Amino acid sequence: MSSTVKRTRLSPDERRTQLITLGAQLLAERALEDISLSEIAARAGISRGLLFHYFQNKQEFQLAIVRHANGELLQRITPDRTLPLPEMLRDCIARYIDYVSENRTSYLALLRGPGSANPDVVPLVDQTRDAIITLILAETPLPTPDLDRARLHLALRGWIAFVEETTLTWLRTEPIPRPALITLLVDSLLALALTLNPALAAALRG
Amino acid sequence: MSSTVKRTRLSPDERRTQLITLGAQLLAERALEDISLSEIAARAGISRGLLFHYFQNKQEFQLAIVRHANGELLQRITPDRTLPLPEMLRDCIARYIDYVSENRTSYLALLRGPGSANPDVVPLVDQTRDAIITLILAETPLPTPDLDRARLHLALRGWIAFVEETTLTWLRTEPIPRPALITLLVDSLLALALTLNPALAAALRG
Repeated sequence: MSSTVKRTRLSPDERRTQLITLGAQLLAERALEDISLSEIAARAGISRGLLFHYFQNKQEFQLAIVRHANGELLQRITPDRTLPLPEMLRDCIARYIDYVSENRTSYLALLRGPGSANPDVVPLVDQTRDAIITLILAETPLPTPDLDRARLHLALRGWIAFVEETTLTWLRTEPIPRPALITLLVDSLLALALTLNPALAAALRG
Repeated sequence: MSSTVKRTRLSPDERRTQLITLGAQLLAERALEDISLSEIAARAGISRGLLFHYFQNKQEFQLAIVRHANGELLQRITPDRTLPLPEMLRDCIARYIDYVSENRTSYLALLRGPGSANPDVVPLVDQTRDAIITLILAETPLPTPDLDRARLHLALRGWIAFVEETTLTWLRTEPIPRPALITLLVDSLLALALTLNPALAAALRG
């Protein structure tokens, strides 16, 4: 399949998606700021100039890649509802560890790299964190109506920071085996739930 | 006390300290990257050019300010050993909240601002996190020799990320009262300790 065939076949939306997907694939190998637009264009069989027909500038293209990567992460950790709640939690966390292990360079760069404090990137990553909180709350039957929502949201934001920091530290040196990391992350949420609301912890524990 | 008097009186070391202290004072009002060297020089009663006699460049001056601020934070949270362990923990966390509340702009900027991913700043902030872990471990009698150190260190790194994220989120909107935040942070460490080692949790709980 030559690039000419591809070029004539793809609609603008398809081409845009193709370019973003190519960018996201490279993101598994390297940090966002190290992805070359010329390389993406070459891989897509188009000129570098034509790439700017689909994205206003490098920044817009990079943000589209971040959005795509965030979507991939969320898709990977979609809860398996055939599992009971405790197993579902462990399964989700195991798949999170797999995803970030496969994408360690780009994940480290996105969360801790020189570009991680980019004011355009930060809100996108924050949206993903909030999506994960929504996901946890959707799967968790909150047993008491009086559970303080503000405190719960704050604690879950903190827990996600806990997960990110332990996982990123783990990715760098793997100081403990993978199953021990998963257990630590599962147990930390159960423990936190216990301090927030014993009934919530009981539900998560099954 | 005129600036001329000051200039003749201070030794190079004293002048350096004075400039860093002035910078750190401004850091309470604004982010590191918004501190003007001309303003610091004016406050010290010296020329902007003379400031570069003490610091090679703006970056070196900024890092000296970060080091100073980190030292201040660590000093503020020095444990009060006259207190029993559970009260000591609560007291340290309360003083941490006070410190970051007083320095909210600079603390937010240092940890989440556009300059927070600066490769020279990151290791300095990380050193402070490790110093806090050392501080916690020094005050906590670890009751079992078989407690897995690698797991404990990883979990404490995660807990510090939990504390930073909840505190920074809290600083932005104060969704819960200050005592509730302190309780959440104390309880989260106790809960985490419980998942790591029941005896450790018992010691922290007193």
